[in-house]
Amino acid sequence: MPVQAVQDDIAQQARAYQNTLTKPAGSLGKLEDIACWFAARQGKVIPDTLKPHVAVFAADHGVCEEGVSAFPSVVTGEMVKNFASDGAAINVLAKQAGASLSIVDVGVLVNTSHIPDVIQAKTQPGTTNSLHHPAMQKHDCLSALQAGKDEAKRAIQKGSNLLIAGDMGIGNTTSSAILIALFTHTPASQIVGLGTGIDEETYRHKIQVVEQVINRVTQQNMPPESYLEQAGGFEIAAMAGFYLEAAMQGVPVIIDGFISAAAALAAQAIEPNINQWMLASHVSQEKGHKIALDKLSLQALLDFKLRLGEGSGAALVLPLLQSSIALHRDMATFDSAEISGKEP
Amino acid sequence: MPVQAVQDDIAQQARAYQNTLTKPAGSLGKLEDIACWFAARQGKVIPDTLKPHVAVFAADHGVCEEGVSAFPSVVTGEMVKNFASDGAAINVLAKQAGASLSIVDVGVLVNTSHIPDVIQAKTQPGTTNSLHHPAMQKHDCLSALQAGKDEAKRAIQKGSNLLIAGDMGIGNTTSSAILIALFTHTPASQIVGLGTGIDEETYRHKIQVVEQVINRVTQQNMPPESYLEQAGGFEIAAMAGFYLEAAMQGVPVIIDGFISAAAALAAQAIEPNINQWMLASHVSQEKGHKIALDKLSLQALLDFKLRLGEGSGAALVLPLLQSSIALHRDMATFDSAEISGKEP
Repeated sequence: MPVQAVQDDIAQQARAYQNTLTKPAGSLGKLEDIACWFAARQGKVIPDTLKPHVAVFAADHGVCEEGVSAFPSVVTGEMVKNFASDGAAINVLAKQAGASLSIVDVGVLVNTSHIPDVIQAKTQPGTTNSLHHPAMQKHDCLSALQAGKDEAKRAIQKGSNLLIAGDMGIGNTTSSAILIALFTHTPASQIVGLGTGIDEETYRHKIQVVEQVINRVTQQNMPPESYLEQAGGFEIAAMAGFYLEAAMQGVPVIIDGFISAAAALAAQAIEPNINQWMLASHVSQEKGHKIALDKLSLQALLDFKLRLGEGSGAALVLPLLQSSIALHRDMATFDSAEISGKEP
Repeated sequence: MPVQAVQDDIAQQARAYQNTLTKPAGSLGKLEDIACWFAARQGKVIPDTLKPHVAVFAADHGVCEEGVSAFPSVVTGEMVKNFASDGAAINVLAKQAGASLSIVDVGVLVNTSHIPDVIQAKTQPGTTNSLHHPAMQKHDCLSALQAGKDEAKRAIQKGSNLLIAGDMGIGNTTSSAILIALFTHTPASQIVGLGTGIDEETYRHKIQVVEQVINRVTQQNMPPESYLEQAGGFEIAAMAGFYLEAAMQGVPVIIDGFISAAAALAAQAIEPNINQWMLASHVSQEKGHKIALDKLSLQALLDFKLRLGEGSGAALVLPLLQSSIALHRDMATFDSAEISGKEP
């Protein structure tokens, strides 16, 4: 099933309606653009209030064996418990924005089945170290993609009309850097960032590891559709599947940070038009994020120097999107309010 | 009474507390900065939830006689009615953010006393045309400043801990351009913008008018404290008074767009340290806004291409500020969530 078509005629009608509202035409800038963007995707000149859902996908990364992260892999499982106990940033932000939240284990190293409310969709307990071998088997990659699709289906079935994928996975800035470098044909040194906060020496080492994986993959002339298997993480594959399902069902998504952009590029390699269903929430402190967003032809709404992941930046902007729709729906028109027009 | 001192020691304690929360230190970027900013101003390591109040000050401008605006002056009064009927952008945004809203007539051309819920604090029905004469008499300027102070007092007394001043006044981008050019010593051509949407010819004429007023004021060697009387609007004077009272009582304010920045500069001319109590919400499409924010040493949070006024940009960012405080207050700590620290 292909990505749904966007209804540009509805966007035009929404724009015409915007110009009847009691403000100088265009004076609400990006808020007007956002309202029209949702109009074209919901197929409604006055879009419905957003019912957002956040799914946090968690998995571990074999490449951590190379010492590329500031934190040990055990933190992935510990953070899953923190998500389930409402203690993480994404819990607070989802609550602030009135978004529902689910946590999906698609490949955490430790067993999380005893933690309440964690959806169990584990393919493998972490990927293989991508330095020497593909990170995952093809069928495991497909299984993780499917786990993401299933989660999007569940959320849409429950009435969500806007989806956010968050990530948790120690080492996933390394896997994402490899993917973004491969998808955008950019040298590792321009993509690799400091992740959760590594020192200078680890940073140089991380760049070398990323370069070596890129060399391994490119020397074998792998096609872009195989990059996920070669160097991805299970949570990144699940996020890509989540985005694909949303676009196929005509439900927009908000892209978060570096990991989310890597997943978006993986989805774009499968469905080139998928970016029509994506809004970029923020530009991350993680170096390669802007390069990934450019490749996706997306412009970030915020620059708040975030570098957390979990879907935090995407959840943060939700109130701005809700406001854009509320303005579009609730403002008086020049006629209804009997306001004089421009000077002749 | 001087501007209250900011408690930098509390900001440091708040920063230390931030670093115990379950995220890599610094990974929430500006959200961490904002929480610490409020901590230093509320004097609480964990700041209280924001209780914002928006006051929209409305007045007319004699300089409109020169044909500088796209809309006729009668729209100011019509928009006051629209505010009172909940039909304007600021009504929607204040409601979205849970902010209280008041409307204050400090100098509207028409009588607004029959409109319910409009606070009557009119000094004069509009300013004098500043092209040839001072826009206001000194006592009228002081009266408008006092009206702003009174409104801030009322809001703080009712429990607001964050104040926003909005503006309504056809012609007020012209008055603000004059003020900003004077306060920042910048040529009119770099400050004057398109306001509510004037054409190229009117734009050139508007620059000339602004230049002529600047020449009139500078040739008389007027001190900065007199610029408000010389070229301001009553709503701009009231906003300056509102900012002054807030800072004297130790309550922070959010600066909105071009008009708001002109008022902030007028307040800064009276109290040089007042900018410590100001957050800049957005950088406007109106050309000189960035120059005014630079003079105030403020960095805008958003660039949403807004140019509406009414306090709309300031109200828009409220949920982001609320989120920064909610994260600071509600996230688990590494200890409480039993999360492992960085690799040794």
